[in-house]
Amino acid sequence: MDDAPLPTRRFRLDLAYDGRPFSGWQSQRGGGTVQDAVESALAAICPAVVSAQGSGRTDAGVSATGQVAHFDAPAASRMGGREWRRALNATLPPTIRATACREIAPAFHARFSAVEKTYDYAIAIGEVLPPLRRGLAWHQPGLGPADALAAILARYEGTRDFRPFSAKRHDGRDEARDTRRTLHEASLRESGDGDELVLRFRGNGFLYKMVRFLVGTAVYVLRGRIADGAFDILLDGGGAKAPYCAPADGLTLVSVRYPAEFEMPRPDDAR
Amino acid sequence: MDDAPLPTRRFRLDLAYDGRPFSGWQSQRGGGTVQDAVESALAAICPAVVSAQGSGRTDAGVSATGQVAHFDAPAASRMGGREWRRALNATLPPTIRATACREIAPAFHARFSAVEKTYDYAIAIGEVLPPLRRGLAWHQPGLGPADALAAILARYEGTRDFRPFSAKRHDGRDEARDTRRTLHEASLRESGDGDELVLRFRGNGFLYKMVRFLVGTAVYVLRGRIADGAFDILLDGGGAKAPYCAPADGLTLVSVRYPAEFEMPRPDDAR
Repeated sequence: MDDAPLPTRRFRLDLAYDGRPFSGWQSQRGGGTVQDAVESALAAICPAVVSAQGSGRTDAGVSATGQVAHFDAPAASRMGGREWRRALNATLPPTIRATACREIAPAFHARFSAVEKTYDYAIAIGEVLPPLRRGLAWHQPGLGPADALAAILARYEGTRDFRPFSAKRHDGRDEARDTRRTLHEASLRESGDGDELVLRFRGNGFLYKMVRFLVGTAVYVLRGRIADGAFDILLDGGGAKAPYCAPADGLTLVSVRYPAEFEMPRPDDAR
Repeated sequence: MDDAPLPTRRFRLDLAYDGRPFSGWQSQRGGGTVQDAVESALAAICPAVVSAQGSGRTDAGVSATGQVAHFDAPAASRMGGREWRRALNATLPPTIRATACREIAPAFHARFSAVEKTYDYAIAIGEVLPPLRRGLAWHQPGLGPADALAAILARYEGTRDFRPFSAKRHDGRDEARDTRRTLHEASLRESGDGDELVLRFRGNGFLYKMVRFLVGTAVYVLRGRIADGAFDILLDGGGAKAPYCAPADGLTLVSVRYPAEFEMPRPDDAR
């Protein structure tokens, strides 16, 4: 008798989703998460596919244009990446789309192979929140000036202990023992006729709720609600916790970068 | 006894809305329209306000960033435009926002004073429709090339009989006896990393469903499904009807222009 597991093929799956109707990425009892929906779709297409591992969790309400996951399909299956993508898009709710899928080396792991992530955080600064931006931007009327906010963001860049800018997970686990991270970019651009500021964070890894703490704290500093000295202490990784976590609404996971051998072909090549 | 109507003050009201949850602008039995929601909010604030006149109807599913309406409030009311805007935004569902409101000369009529309207029509051309663009863009994967579509659109510009590019209203009325209109602009720009084409239509007036017929027909011509000769006949206002009305999803009423005395102060001045 041979009890060895059946041989499998690994697939990299790129996903975009509207985070508003979901309780975040991570599978949970009772469902309602993006991972639950993706795993249900995979299993509906091929019952032997039992799980999809994401590059990381996104919180409830957080959207993604470039989340990455991987899954293993039976080697005997003849479905290629293109077939998987089409089957998934015919099965998933329209709030989740498979933007790309390809077979990848078994060494690839959506979470552990990731070398860089990019998040955008949108802040609507007009007097009213445009209806089409509901749940997609944090409404902070009149926030500015943009260059002062950009200068505060620039202070986040570099390698430091970001523990003050993180939260414990609800399950009480404190996964990240090493809380040093490198933020390559913390920048700002104006968008939508100047009615929105989009803050971009690009780094080698992010602690739980880190982007939202970085945004909330930067806005507090801009509004003069955190003194310079207190901000310096937070930046030095001091014992204090950042006081404000911005809402999930404005946050989008833009992309996850992997070593070159795991990258997708450019969309233009794939078309 | 004095039966004369109470003196009133007229207000111009600028509105933005997410058209997806609504059955269009125009009030209807059973409600569910933007006008119904606006009139309910006005009456909740001041029961003497009985109606809001829009610049024109938008179809079910059509959004607006710059719809304009007017309403009459009792002259005895002390509420100014700013107070009306705030009260409306506290009363309206978040899918509708009052972006501006100001008292205006009684000669102003949101519909009859309008001299120009601008619509955008978004077409998503990527292989999958991004989840955040659901109901906001028409999905036409691979549509192009953009310059060929732009050349087709340019042929719409000018003054002509647009009757072939219109539909009868559901109530059977054929409101527009004179179906000549001037289209000042029918252009195209790329947006969203080139994954979307945004078609802009600016003209002195639009027939029922005209923009959607212009878009649908242009795409048919681009795809070679309408011969050049047949397109020429449609452009000449010939008896044939344009064969294809694009879905409401991609359409947004961007702005309505009025003579200078009726214009809002620029947003920057108003803040």
